[in-house]
Amino acid sequence: MVEFPPLTYSLDGHDDDKPHEECGVFGIWNAHDAGAMTALGLHALQHRGQEATGIVSYNDETRPGVTGFHTHKGMGLVGDVFSDARIIAGLPGHSAIGHNRYATTGATILRNVQPLFAEFEFGGLAVAHNGNLTNALSLRRALVRRGCIFQSTTDSEVFIHLIAISLYSTVNDRLIDALKQVVGAYSLTVLTQQALIGVRDPLGVRPLILGRIANEAGADKAAGPAWVLASESCALDIVGAEFVRDVEPGEIVVIDHSGVRSIKPFAPKRGHFCVFEYIYFARPDSVLDGHAVYDARKRIGAELARESAVEADVIVPVPDSGVPSAMGYSVESGIPFELGIIRNHYVGRTFIEPTDQIRNLGVKLKHSANRATIEGRRVILVDDSIVRGTTSRKIVEMVRAAGATEVHMRISSPPTTHSCFYGIDTPERSKLLAAQHTVEEMAHLIGADSLAFISLDGLYRALGRPGRDPEQPFYCDACFTGQYPISLADVDVDSQARQTELVTSR
Amino acid sequence: MVEFPPLTYSLDGHDDDKPHEECGVFGIWNAHDAGAMTALGLHALQHRGQEATGIVSYNDETRPGVTGFHTHKGMGLVGDVFSDARIIAGLPGHSAIGHNRYATTGATILRNVQPLFAEFEFGGLAVAHNGNLTNALSLRRALVRRGCIFQSTTDSEVFIHLIAISLYSTVNDRLIDALKQVVGAYSLTVLTQQALIGVRDPLGVRPLILGRIANEAGADKAAGPAWVLASESCALDIVGAEFVRDVEPGEIVVIDHSGVRSIKPFAPKRGHFCVFEYIYFARPDSVLDGHAVYDARKRIGAELARESAVEADVIVPVPDSGVPSAMGYSVESGIPFELGIIRNHYVGRTFIEPTDQIRNLGVKLKHSANRATIEGRRVILVDDSIVRGTTSRKIVEMVRAAGATEVHMRISSPPTTHSCFYGIDTPERSKLLAAQHTVEEMAHLIGADSLAFISLDGLYRALGRPGRDPEQPFYCDACFTGQYPISLADVDVDSQARQTELVTSR
Amino acid sequence: MVEFPPLTYSLDGHDDDKPHEECGVFGIWNAHDAGAMTALGLHALQHRGQEATGIVSYNDETRPGVTGFHTHKGMGLVGDVFSDARIIAGLPGHSAIGHNRYATTGATILRNVQPLFAEFEFGGLAVAHNGNLTNALSLRRALVRRGCIFQSTTDSEVFIHLIAISLYSTVNDRLIDALKQVVGAYSLTVLTQQALIGVRDPLGVRPLILGRIANEAGADKAAGPAWVLASESCALDIVGAEFVRDVEPGEIVVIDHSGVRSIKPFAPKRGHFCVFEYIYFARPDSVLDGHAVYDARKRIGAELARESAVEADVIVPVPDSGVPSAMGYSVESGIPFELGIIRNHYVGRTFIEPTDQIRNLGVKLKHSANRATIEGRRVILVDDSIVRGTTSRKIVEMVRAAGATEVHMRISSPPTTHSCFYGIDTPERSKLLAAQHTVEEMAHLIGADSLAFISLDGLYRALGRPGRDPEQPFYCDACFTGQYPISLADVDVDSQARQTELVTSR
Amino acid sequence: MVEFPPLTYSLDGHDDDKPHEECGVFGIWNAHDAGAMTALGLHALQHRGQEATGIVSYNDETRPGVTGFHTHKGMGLVGDVFSDARIIAGLPGHSAIGHNRYATTGATILRNVQPLFAEFEFGGLAVAHNGNLTNALSLRRALVRRGCIFQSTTDSEVFIHLIAISLYSTVNDRLIDALKQVVGAYSLTVLTQQALIGVRDPLGVRPLILGRIANEAGADKAAGPAWVLASESCALDIVGAEFVRDVEPGEIVVIDHSGVRSIKPFAPKRGHFCVFEYIYFARPDSVLDGHAVYDARKRIGAELARESAVEADVIVPVPDSGVPSAMGYSVESGIPFELGIIRNHYVGRTFIEPTDQIRNLGVKLKHSANRATIEGRRVILVDDSIVRGTTSRKIVEMVRAAGATEVHMRISSPPTTHSCFYGIDTPERSKLLAAQHTVEEMAHLIGADSLAFISLDGLYRALGRPGRDPEQPFYCDACFTGQYPISLADVDVDSQARQTELVTSR
Repeated sequence: MVEFPPLTYSLDGHDDDKPHEECGVFGIWNAHDAGAMTALGLHALQHRGQEATGIVSYNDETRPGVTGFHTHKGMGLVGDVFSDARIIAGLPGHSAIGHNRYATTGATILRNVQPLFAEFEFGGLAVAHNGNLTNALSLRRALVRRGCIFQSTTDSEVFIHLIAISLYSTVNDRLIDALKQVVGAYSLTVLTQQALIGVRDPLGVRPLILGRIANEAGADKAAGPAWVLASESCALDIVGAEFVRDVEPGEIVVIDHSGVRSIKPFAPKRGHFCVFEYIYFARPDSVLDGHAVYDARKRIGAELARESAVEADVIVPVPDSGVPSAMGYSVESGIPFELGIIRNHYVGRTFIEPTDQIRNLGVKLKHSANRATIEGRRVILVDDSIVRGTTSRKIVEMVRAAGATEVHMRISSPPTTHSCFYGIDTPERSKLLAAQHTVEEMAHLIGADSLAFISLDGLYRALGRPGRDPEQPFYCDACFTGQYPISLADVDVDSQARQTELVTSR
Repeated sequence: MVEFPPLTYSLDGHDDDKPHEECGVFGIWNAHDAGAMTALGLHALQHRGQEATGIVSYNDETRPGVTGFHTHKGMGLVGDVFSDARIIAGLPGHSAIGHNRYATTGATILRNVQPLFAEFEFGGLAVAHNGNLTNALSLRRALVRRGCIFQSTTDSEVFIHLIAISLYSTVNDRLIDALKQVVGAYSLTVLTQQALIGVRDPLGVRPLILGRIANEAGADKAAGPAWVLASESCALDIVGAEFVRDVEPGEIVVIDHSGVRSIKPFAPKRGHFCVFEYIYFARPDSVLDGHAVYDARKRIGAELARESAVEADVIVPVPDSGVPSAMGYSVESGIPFELGIIRNHYVGRTFIEPTDQIRNLGVKLKHSANRATIEGRRVILVDDSIVRGTTSRKIVEMVRAAGATEVHMRISSPPTTHSCFYGIDTPERSKLLAAQHTVEEMAHLIGADSLAFISLDGLYRALGRPGRDPEQPFYCDACFTGQYPISLADVDVDSQARQTELVTSR
Repeated sequence: MVEFPPLTYSLDGHDDDKPHEECGVFGIWNAHDAGAMTALGLHALQHRGQEATGIVSYNDETRPGVTGFHTHKGMGLVGDVFSDARIIAGLPGHSAIGHNRYATTGATILRNVQPLFAEFEFGGLAVAHNGNLTNALSLRRALVRRGCIFQSTTDSEVFIHLIAISLYSTVNDRLIDALKQVVGAYSLTVLTQQALIGVRDPLGVRPLILGRIANEAGADKAAGPAWVLASESCALDIVGAEFVRDVEPGEIVVIDHSGVRSIKPFAPKRGHFCVFEYIYFARPDSVLDGHAVYDARKRIGAELARESAVEADVIVPVPDSGVPSAMGYSVESGIPFELGIIRNHYVGRTFIEPTDQIRNLGVKLKHSANRATIEGRRVILVDDSIVRGTTSRKIVEMVRAAGATEVHMRISSPPTTHSCFYGIDTPERSKLLAAQHTVEEMAHLIGADSLAFISLDGLYRALGRPGRDPEQPFYCDACFTGQYPISLADVDVDSQARQTELVTSR
Repeated sequence: MVEFPPLTYSLDGHDDDKPHEECGVFGIWNAHDAGAMTALGLHALQHRGQEATGIVSYNDETRPGVTGFHTHKGMGLVGDVFSDARIIAGLPGHSAIGHNRYATTGATILRNVQPLFAEFEFGGLAVAHNGNLTNALSLRRALVRRGCIFQSTTDSEVFIHLIAISLYSTVNDRLIDALKQVVGAYSLTVLTQQALIGVRDPLGVRPLILGRIANEAGADKAAGPAWVLASESCALDIVGAEFVRDVEPGEIVVIDHSGVRSIKPFAPKRGHFCVFEYIYFARPDSVLDGHAVYDARKRIGAELARESAVEADVIVPVPDSGVPSAMGYSVESGIPFELGIIRNHYVGRTFIEPTDQIRNLGVKLKHSANRATIEGRRVILVDDSIVRGTTSRKIVEMVRAAGATEVHMRISSPPTTHSCFYGIDTPERSKLLAAQHTVEEMAHLIGADSLAFISLDGLYRALGRPGRDPEQPFYCDACFTGQYPISLADVDVDSQARQTELVTSR
């Protein structure tokens, strides 16, 4: 007999039944208003992290304004933290990097907000990091033993200390020295007085893209183009930059007054780009690794329709992320696509802690059923993933209450059976519904008449890869397969939970 | 030669190129947690007003908590103003009314936030008003002359004073006395110690709906059902209420311990329900006047496709409001529907006041083009209306920049040629693009290859009405026709601008 | 057997064991920067009310800036509410009035903050009121019955409504009409488009002073002097105004472009100026009714020394208000004056709600004993009054704990046996220690070796009046004698508590 | 010819014409509610720093609440930062340290607020520091070169890094290792999991006092007394602790479960306690180095009267700090003491940025003249010091304007001719009036009829020391003599200005 946890009330302001991208990074070089441009880029990357954001700019002596590094960070959305023209004016300079943070715990604190900055013998250095290091805890312990003092509780801070204590003399050598000691997934933007640097880990798990603003209006033409680094191409679009190329796995891109150079300090490996970026994380208008995300999602939906057809009257996406795959499903299956679930975007930052009375109503603050398209119909719901299953259960219940005669759930990813340790916030395995139950049990638990996930092969077909060959990987799919391409030094193999941290002050 | 105003940068946090609904109202009677239920109802009505919100509850002696009226109001979203459980706990009682406010000026101030409350000889009375009175200024002048002191600058305050000075003795008689003096559009919820009252103006311009919670969990069964009044049916859904009926034009619904009574103090007239509620204002999952809004919009889109077909490769809605009509257009025309414009919902409350440099980029903070679906294609954009045209122009420009070979704009309403004086915020006539230009000129101005609006007849066909007969009106369509069904006492006929107000203190 | 209430912990941020002045008023006419000048005047009057403050300015067409009335109000100190130059810039004009509020309840709300403003047929009018009306509740009931809608819960709002409904046509006549209906203590400043008006009630209970700035730097000389009205002379000093005279009891002073006029609509009566202003309320550097407050307090201290001598080693004032009388006591008695109690002025707005543990320590956040001056000595403590006695008890305890061998308490006012209904916040009689106990009992209760109050005759001797003759009063001393010179329409004679108010919404 | 800077308007919220104590420290061990007790202690030390405050508590496993270190810091007064019971509840444990900060620049930022905390191999450690290191910059440079990353811009952070990199293994040995490398003035409280540690620099420039709570109410008796470390004895009084002794110059006091131990790692030297603590900084009710501060000030005033008598009618202190010495002057001279200047304590956190008009009035927000005691009299003003002279000039001007016939200024310290580098905020030499001018010139500049300072010998006579013998120093008097007892490694000898810091990010 299968037990299901009691239906708990979600405050809904933050959907804890989705995996969460843990960050977005941005950097710009040789631009007028580098600080303002970075704020725009971070705004376009807002979907990758909404809890905090920060910018570090550098202004040299040749520009107006105070020379040196300038920092502003805050909790909340980019548009709120950088809402004031005086704040942007306080970030002068021709180069800047920025970071959006999604934190894995509620206790996000300002000193954890990136970019991190440190003063070295050779000058200042700022780092913004998307990803997760898998040996951060071991490194941290060793560094503390050596006398390093950590100010944040983020794994990203080890980069700074490793650079600080490196015996090499140039920034680039120190950076390479540090990179050779860390294990994990990382896309970095680094800012020094001399250069903007982009780094992608040897497997290229997280995205990082290079763009160029050829002829920036108002900028000094002679000074050449402005260069941009960003997690996704949508951040190039907003600042008017053209796409140049993906930074390659294991590549260091150094941008300075003499142009763009590439350093490849690691032995070449096949990349393992995170496949979930295509399924859910990336913005639909981004182009990653040469593929338009929106098209990929529609093809995945079509493949899903081929794999797990069912008779029905209407295809309804779970908004907003399920929309493109539902459209693909609809086109392939010929079943009409309808907006059967309306999403309320005005949820605000917080909402009432409701009374018991209201909790019993099972109120959905973020979604409501559009009865006109559902009542008396057989409904196929299309969503991108099932993590804990709590939201899926509520959605199915809501759709039934609105009069659906049948509710079939189709998921545009394989079952999520393993946690991610490379930069995505997923619950530990024991809380992943697919890790604990068969698909049939899951259907029962979420209350659907049927449930189907796309197969891993189907997913790769849709993405245009010839099938999954461990010898010739394109993607990291550890969350579906448990095959972790990067070693998990800090992870307890049994519980698959991260070890607790040293930090004792809150 | 047609001149067009220079492209101004919109801060985008608030889209000033759409008409704006000016309010939503809610009321509940005989419910546990009436205050919390009202907060939920207002949350569901958030699209009708986002700038301020308020609740007045009444607690009688038979309930726990402090007896009397309780008020909480604030600037911002419902979820933020009522975010704290202590605030909800401070609104005890079995009955409550609430209001969401969209203000027509930036200077929204707390004393203008509704519900308005006053203490009368017979006890307290609170009023929440959706709509606009067209003789408010004349009434206000007369009341001031008589010695009435106004505290707000809202037209809604005249209701309170007219009730206060009425020579009748019962609340109902005083209310009717007041209603007979006001001219305009109004849906009211009124709360006294004895009753919850709903009122709709004689022409029923704004919506008001009655619902019932038959068997409220945890409530005293013997006490009978809870009753709900709301601007739209989506607010019934969120509190678990069933739809009973629309309040009729000119009807007063009195809900008290003896049940629901109807009073009809006005001579019967044909209603003139605002047709724009179907086109744009109402939430797609609402049912108004017996019609599902979502279905109506799809039918309008289909009719639009029949009326103004054009060869193209792809139908792209201007999100979010253009989506259902674009879907209808796609189904009717057979041209594929694609999400060619992505909307960024994370704009935050404010955003940077950008530098000149960035302003020149023509940055779009809220919309971005999804190049994958647009590049090299002939695009039909579907939107619901054109007011000033500034946003349309930017959207067309953005779609072209993303590679569209042709851009055709289709609008699911007739040209907006006249201002609304019945509760919708529209610019004065001189700023309405359709009031100043032919359709061809407009196409040129917004940069589209072609532009078409649905015809008024087409609109009514789509809504299932046999054609527009001034003798047998169903709708108010003054914004398209200039035929104002309610006299405009305070309006300067020449400029069609509201006269300036008396108020001298800011 | 005498029982004493358990020693309760006072949060100390607000000393609830003193009577509290309920307000200060200010007005200025024909001055550059009238708004800024008013902020300064209110700052000088801050001791009369610290919980909220507000300014209304009027700018006519001849001056730069927006024409009309301008208002800014806020909770807190003048220096915080008017801290921003933009706020002051938002109060343009040549005339302004302002108000500091001390509220009698914790629930001070912004709509109660004065000046109150209303728009009349003849234009706007603002009122600031220091005092209390004793028939406000009766008037309010009658006005509500007539259809007037009250927005605040202050007694001061009746002035506004009485003026609004008056059948007279000029502002002055309407004001006189209103004044003839109210009973109580009031010093008013009133601002209209045409004039600044000052009013003092027929008995002149609260102070009001007229000043002049002869030759305002930078102002238009031809325009004549600027005129100032203020509760105390210290507010003249800060704006550089010279003292002209006290406004007389029952006098209306009208200041407009033609100068200063006096209207005396009431039959002449002998004034009853509040004697407690000399004892405690007024600032020591103010001059009231021709007497310097500081000198008066020293003379009272000297008289107290003559009346109730006791052998001791040191005179210690209870700071800050007890200092001048302690100095007078010391000079007269020849016993050295020492600062034996140190007052901590950094208490902040709030302080920790302490744990039980700390509460038991009897912590004094605002006062500490200066052991060096106390240890091993016989101490005479000089304070201005005893209300509930709780603070006195703690002070005596603290001084003993610091090693005093004897503690004698001397009070520079007669025993406070009756509540004030004329603008001073005093507890009801049942909570006045002197109303419930003999002086001997009081000494025992506060733990002093001896306790003495100045006699009423001694007080008047010190103030230079020949003795207390009810036929020839100079002062209101109802708090010491129970002889109330103004009728108490709204007061329950038995409980001497104010009746509860009508107001039902919080 | 002597030039004087134009009279600038001081915002007055912060008196920049006084030297400023740069900090207060507190620590407590083995107490219930150690966090709350520390908040009280910091409140008593509020005069030593008002801009920021912080507490770190440690809770071990034997106590309720979360085990570990807990931190709360904020900008502002203790009573505001720790105003909420939940904040205090978030600081559980039996031991805690705290810090009040006075910052020398406007840009106080949260990461500079102490106590500083770091996690070491052996566990956490928190430090609070009063004083200034004179070789901090050199040390910082060396530490950065070694790879240490600084997070704050305070000199205090070097302690943390020196402890972190020490090769010794125990905390005490690491601490001693660190102390041997720093040069400067420091009183420290240090908290680890095992101990509370107090440290005073070898010359004992800043104060540090040990106290004990013998029998803490509610605490476990068996557990022995609670121990307290504090900058001044007034902080012992507020938590009910008895004075035990001053921590000696160069002493380390280690308080742990086995009691109190003393470590003296430095060769014995004669102390050089800051004499300005007696003159101005310390609270008058504190006892320092065996002397009651209040008594010392009175004796200084008396000595000043003997040294520089002048005929006059009245002695007026410049409040609040000048009061005790004025009293001593009055007693010695026989001239009456009067409160001729009233201080307004309600200045608020900020005040209006005044208009030019008001600036010309020379408005004094914090002081006003009490004309009754001044008019027509010869006045001796007594103040504790003259730094820039700007306030003195305004005070003299104000007193003259109030009618004084003569104004003589007497100062209870010798002329301040040198800057302090040991923890007191003084302007650089070029801005010290006494460094640039003779006493006669100074009298002229501040507008006084005469000016006199106490002599250094007179000062020491008053403090009971037999005369100033460089061989047998008791005090640091470098600000009067330029004889700096601790070397000034980081100071530019010529300009006597601190060198600019490395830090490049703001």
